Amino acid sequence: MAKNDLKLLGAWFSPFPLRVQIALNLKGLEYEFVEETLDSKSELLLKSNPVHKKIPVLIHADKPICESAIIVQYIDEVWTNSPSILPSNAYDRAIARFWAAYIDDKLLVAMLNILVAEDEEAKRVLFAELEEGFERMEDVLNKHSEGKAYFGGDSIGFIDIVFGSFLGFFRVLEEMNGRIMLDEAKNPSLTKWAQTFAAHPAVKDVLPQTHKLVEFAKVSNQRRAAQAST
Amino acid sequence: MAKNDLKLLGAWFSPFPLRVQIALNLKGLEYEFVEETLDSKSELLLKSNPVHKKIPVLIHADKPICESAIIVQYIDEVWTNSPSILPSNAYDRAIARFWAAYIDDKLLVAMLNILVAEDEEAKRVLFAELEEGFERMEDVLNKHSEGKAYFGGDSIGFIDIVFGSFLGFFRVLEEMNGRIMLDEAKNPSLTKWAQTFAAHPAVKDVLPQTHKLVEFAKVSNQRRAAQAST
Repeated sequence: MAKNDLKLLGAWFSPFPLRVQIALNLKGLEYEFVEETLDSKSELLLKSNPVHKKIPVLIHADKPICESAIIVQYIDEVWTNSPSILPSNAYDRAIARFWAAYIDDKLLVAMLNILVAEDEEAKRVLFAELEEGFERMEDVLNKHSEGKAYFGGDSIGFIDIVFGSFLGFFRVLEEMNGRIMLDEAKNPSLTKWAQTFAAHPAVKDVLPQTHKLVEFAKVSNQRRAAQAST
Repeated sequence: MAKNDLKLLGAWFSPFPLRVQIALNLKGLEYEFVEETLDSKSELLLKSNPVHKKIPVLIHADKPICESAIIVQYIDEVWTNSPSILPSNAYDRAIARFWAAYIDDKLLVAMLNILVAEDEEAKRVLFAELEEGFERMEDVLNKHSEGKAYFGGDSIGFIDIVFGSFLGFFRVLEEMNGRIMLDEAKNPSLTKWAQTFAAHPAVKDVLPQTHKLVEFAKVSNQRRAAQAST
């Protein structure tokens, strides 16, 4: 039986299982990590998430829960020991859900489109979109944290986890495009937040190493290009 | 001051404010409905949802909450009188959130694509996708409701609201494409569910009338075609 009867189906390079790992670490929960690969999906994954066939899946006492943001909320609702990941107030919870959705619907989509953009002009437009999004998140951080380290205040919260899961992705885009994603002059609070977040005990051991992630992204890109040309 | 200090920015033809209306009705809450139009957005809307500039927005005690699924959860968390919209158990809540996301990410996207599909073959593929989705939802309903009327059991729950908000959309697609969306032979439980849902006191007075909705969709389509050709 897995530790705490918790098994996480994930992959080291993906930001989505990372969210679940951070939430589990914050709650001090041990779990078994089952590594999935891009090439083949395990029987357990196909059985646990037959609709989307995607990681992450958290299996808790033999019951599967899918979709990273839903899993993080589940963890917070089942293990109510502090720190609480979502705010205790219903309005603040709605606001946290709003920004989490914004990050996935807008910023993530822009980042994914940069990875597959075919020319420099398309990239330029997407980076401008991202910059605008980062400005917005800088404002949100300043407004929410009131000088504290995180979007969640003194401790890591829902927005921190959802946004922070992309720090590795930022590094990949930086390396592959020769530019800075979080500019200290433009986004001083976000830059500081990213450093504090990455150094947090619940985060630092599960964040993938930049050079491994960049190498992985390059190989994936080459593979995609080779497939497209056959 | 609005009733209960609740103001809903919506539009009669949109399924998304409808979700909020149903949730408010279920909780027995009176509210002021502020009708927005496609042609111009009110100052209040732009101020209340500066990020997406979209309906619905629920303004509660001068604080705006955006995104229909987030608003419905907010209502359920603030007004905890029965009926509860989300299940009380954390696992069941995760499952309800999963299917709500599935409906918006898969079924809604297929329906929107049918509206703008350029040829019959594209439509055929999209209708096949929808049919597969309906089969899935038929299974979910049979499994969840255990013979009860709703996805939520004896009372309307989160999946019911999210899925049921599209009943008007189904009628529009039926009229415009000369076909049945929910086929009684293939989807007996869903067909019955749709009838029961539409007749519920919290729903029947806020569901838009089919003929008005079809007329509206036709005019919108003509307008889009005219814009595309100029």
